[in-house]
Amino acid sequence: MFDEKAVAVAKIRAKVLHAARCWLDQNNYIEVHGPTLIPAVGDWPGYFEVKYFDKNAYLTQGLEPYSNVFLAGLGRVYTIAPTFRAEKLKTPRHLAEFWRLEVAQQCDFEKIIQVQEELLSHVCCVLLREAREELKYVGRRETDLVKVRLPFPKLTYEEAVDKLQNDGLAISWGQRLDGEAENHLSLRFDRPFFVTEFPIDSQTLFCKPHPQKSGVTFSVDLFPPEGYGEISSGAQVISEKKALRELMTEENIDVGDQEWQLALMQDCPDSHSAFAIGIERLIQWICRLKNIREASAFPRALNDFYP
Amino acid sequence: MFDEKAVAVAKIRAKVLHAARCWLDQNNYIEVHGPTLIPAVGDWPGYFEVKYFDKNAYLTQGLEPYSNVFLAGLGRVYTIAPTFRAEKLKTPRHLAEFWRLEVAQQCDFEKIIQVQEELLSHVCCVLLREAREELKYVGRRETDLVKVRLPFPKLTYEEAVDKLQNDGLAISWGQRLDGEAENHLSLRFDRPFFVTEFPIDSQTLFCKPHPQKSGVTFSVDLFPPEGYGEISSGAQVISEKKALRELMTEENIDVGDQEWQLALMQDCPDSHSAFAIGIERLIQWICRLKNIREASAFPRALNDFYP
Repeated sequence: MFDEKAVAVAKIRAKVLHAARCWLDQNNYIEVHGPTLIPAVGDWPGYFEVKYFDKNAYLTQGLEPYSNVFLAGLGRVYTIAPTFRAEKLKTPRHLAEFWRLEVAQQCDFEKIIQVQEELLSHVCCVLLREAREELKYVGRRETDLVKVRLPFPKLTYEEAVDKLQNDGLAISWGQRLDGEAENHLSLRFDRPFFVTEFPIDSQTLFCKPHPQKSGVTFSVDLFPPEGYGEISSGAQVISEKKALRELMTEENIDVGDQEWQLALMQDCPDSHSAFAIGIERLIQWICRLKNIREASAFPRALNDFYP
Repeated sequence: MFDEKAVAVAKIRAKVLHAARCWLDQNNYIEVHGPTLIPAVGDWPGYFEVKYFDKNAYLTQGLEPYSNVFLAGLGRVYTIAPTFRAEKLKTPRHLAEFWRLEVAQQCDFEKIIQVQEELLSHVCCVLLREAREELKYVGRRETDLVKVRLPFPKLTYEEAVDKLQNDGLAISWGQRLDGEAENHLSLRFDRPFFVTEFPIDSQTLFCKPHPQKSGVTFSVDLFPPEGYGEISSGAQVISEKKALRELMTEENIDVGDQEWQLALMQDCPDSHSAFAIGIERLIQWICRLKNIREASAFPRALNDFYP
């Protein structure tokens, strides 16, 4: 069932996890585990429902909002855990079950960007040293990974839209960067790059609005250079209960269903930033996989579930 | 939400995971991830059901039977992942969601016992070196962990039953060791100990029958010395499709629902052994926690799910 390529990919995957943990441990992050089964999610889409004794529960989409609590008690934390998305998407980039490396710490937006580039550059450095044979097997050139060094190129969402418009793509400010836009943008770079300050509404609810720039948030996506879609998403997150409650009301989200999330925010420190790397997305890029399914030994996707 | 004791427990938990991974990495085990969402489980009890698009799926109870495939492709493997049990048990030892460290490799029964004792002794050694303050906080004496060295005491299930009968407990050959029996037995030892060769039927379906001793299997549980229930279960597992199919028929299990499991066995090597450590069980013992809930930051148990 495992052909030689699958073996190489699995070994690279294990090495990536190992290298990431080494960097995090060396930098005093503490490993934590949030719950997989979470309470009511209300109208938010994309959650799998679980029959939990005589209740309903849902499968997690990430360490938020639990990271608040870990952060308050432990300082810098990370988790590596499975995540679930019930989106009806059948693309070469989406899995219904995937693993995520999530980091949360008390720091500002600039710092959380820097953590991502340091972590990824360390991972690539370890691969160059300890997975040469496997990289060769999957067709990843060493020179591609040598280029993954600090600082990564950075552009704001606004600059990205300008560039795309200049190149003749039909995109206007406020629209999501779709697959075509992401691919197009990624061809401008020879190493991973950040796009920052996305418009309010286009990212998750938790991103903090930029205090100086109207309409955008402290949000950041990290893209690989060859058009595989973002491999990491981060933000400085809203850490005031009142602000989140107001935002929920603005967005017509039933606050009643989210009281448990708000309750977790009580001890929250001032500047709280976080990011999540999609492990299979990262492996897809490193191993040059056409379909993200190949990054997982037993992939779960829409209409694709066996064994 | 995190008091000082919870912080110490969380730090010990992170250190245990770190130490275990270090030992496994140094001994050439490769980290893998099986799926969390698994197909039909038929009549087997204790699985949580998930609405998976227009199908039903279930939440995993362990790396079996997927470990066959990883093993064939990669050799020695391990995983650290969440596991789910929908048993209606409300005890200080059971969680509905817990993390499990699972190891699988091509080796015989003796070897898989040795791997468990080496791994656990390494973990305790690292805690003594790197978590002194936290151990003190939770009330675990250093001398208790110093005693966790090779070889651990070993007795067969039959010897265990004899000892319990001599002590006046009402137990006969073939019965499960219940909480009382386990506690009683554990008071005879000052360090973790193994009970081996449980009767057929009393363990999971996958344990290989002992070729020389009728009625027992190559199965092993590891108990801590103070009566917290088993912290690890292992076995040499059945690796022939035909043998498993026959056993399923004997046990009146609908083989049709299990064809996907049997299909995964095709490439299986000859001697395949495995064990699973319940992380929260291990933490409960190390940290001397009255209730296993305290070993998890956001525990999920029967009628106990918030936030």
